[in-house]
Amino acid sequence: MRSHILGKIELDRTRLAKDLGYLASVPTVEEEYDEFSNGFWKNIPLWNATGEGEDRLYRDVPGSAIATEHAARVPYLREIVQTVFVGDRLKMARTRNLKNAVVIPHRDFVELDQDVDRYFRTFMVLEDSPQAFHSNEDTVIHMRPGEIWFLDAATVHAAINFSEHSRQSLCIDFAFDGGFDEKEIFADPTVYDPGATPEIVTRKPFTQEHRDRILSLSKVIERQNFRDLLFLLSKVHFTYDVHPGDAYDWLVEIAKKADDEKMVVKAEQIREFAMEARALHDRFSLTSW
Amino acid sequence: MRSHILGKIELDRTRLAKDLGYLASVPTVEEEYDEFSNGFWKNIPLWNATGEGEDRLYRDVPGSAIATEHAARVPYLREIVQTVFVGDRLKMARTRNLKNAVVIPHRDFVELDQDVDRYFRTFMVLEDSPQAFHSNEDTVIHMRPGEIWFLDAATVHAAINFSEHSRQSLCIDFAFDGGFDEKEIFADPTVYDPGATPEIVTRKPFTQEHRDRILSLSKVIERQNFRDLLFLLSKVHFTYDVHPGDAYDWLVEIAKKADDEKMVVKAEQIREFAMEARALHDRFSLTSW
Repeated sequence: MRSHILGKIELDRTRLAKDLGYLASVPTVEEEYDEFSNGFWKNIPLWNATGEGEDRLYRDVPGSAIATEHAARVPYLREIVQTVFVGDRLKMARTRNLKNAVVIPHRDFVELDQDVDRYFRTFMVLEDSPQAFHSNEDTVIHMRPGEIWFLDAATVHAAINFSEHSRQSLCIDFAFDGGFDEKEIFADPTVYDPGATPEIVTRKPFTQEHRDRILSLSKVIERQNFRDLLFLLSKVHFTYDVHPGDAYDWLVEIAKKADDEKMVVKAEQIREFAMEARALHDRFSLTSW
Repeated sequence: MRSHILGKIELDRTRLAKDLGYLASVPTVEEEYDEFSNGFWKNIPLWNATGEGEDRLYRDVPGSAIATEHAARVPYLREIVQTVFVGDRLKMARTRNLKNAVVIPHRDFVELDQDVDRYFRTFMVLEDSPQAFHSNEDTVIHMRPGEIWFLDAATVHAAINFSEHSRQSLCIDFAFDGGFDEKEIFADPTVYDPGATPEIVTRKPFTQEHRDRILSLSKVIERQNFRDLLFLLSKVHFTYDVHPGDAYDWLVEIAKKADDEKMVVKAEQIREFAMEARALHDRFSLTSW
């Protein structure tokens, strides 16, 4: 199952503006998984495993998620969550914002015990932000406000906002005990309307010549800029038609050409960590050598 | 006048640990001047122009600065500020932390009306963080905890923490109406003991061959990674013996080699903005084209 549009709601701009104002006023904190991003990434939990407004970690939770104090401050978003979606499968609802930031290509849920098919993540952009994109395997998407997306977090995906303009969004996670149909997440069956045509980003061709230019970063890479180059490489696939995971292969090759075994090992480790087998709470440093 | 050590105090680790705990608990917010840094940069005002704990902007203020609510929560640091330094020239006192972050080379106070010689900035690192450095013109410094530094913010300087380990510090700004002697900032005259030998970082030679490698970034630069490359270039001088301001000259040259006039203009603008003549509240975007 790949990322696709599940339905669309018409957002009430006036009511939404008040909620966005509250979200903007919540201070940013250091994020879980912040090895995966640079720049400004702000997650605010509305429902989560504990009901605590500072608890940002997704985890398996028996029963349904608990509203945090933030949910009370965003009445319009609360109404959307409670009227559009089925509450008893809801495991987490959070707003997410990116500015001048990239979330590097990775797979989610690999740290959880259960079969990834149990998990179902939806994502809805709340503000029109033309320079903000998602990627999923070989596709780059510009999500339009109000579109409810299934986000296939178990396959390789990434996100970016090339600008400093806010890209507030609502991310809702569901989990099921066994098989399910995607329409089961909706309390309001009229919202479920799959098959809409998404705004796919037309990317430039990725050529061997471009690949060679990227690999010339072996002349510049050092341990002190290893992390910067990882983020730089992670952005290429948003503009050029190449798989997001190739960023890691380039990083490994660049490190090999630079002939620094520690960098090669770290490049292979971050590829493994992001793409394959990270463990819950397993932290990874891009800057310790 | 260049950056130099003014004196040193013995930090009480036990009392300090409690204050550091409070500072770590204060949420990070988006910072004024955040065009100048990437990564994690956290400033907490203890004394400022308004006494408001969220007011992070340095500005000229008649009389002395006002304590914020944060000052009450860090009794040891409050005691240091109030017993070591003269209160009536104090314009701002704030804690500053950097993690996995660089503050790009720049000059301060250029946006203020008055003669820069009126301003006197001191800086004291509170935690030992071996991968954190300051630079000032042709010198890179590793500040040791308890050293009270005059930081010559009116000349070209930059800062970095290559690691994710906390580098909490205390930055205190003074201003005078006319001529003054640096010892006038001290209420406790026994602390003033200039002339100590700093820990200067021995850097690698910067060669023409290295410069050519840096300029090969013209093969990779695009508008989408322009900002990333600026930060990457800003780090070079911490490891190699080259002036911090050269980062901007390389950026201009790389943009010219890449033959993108808009990038050339932006590179020249950021050089001007950081090094010469930025205006107060004048914001600059590295990502809008």
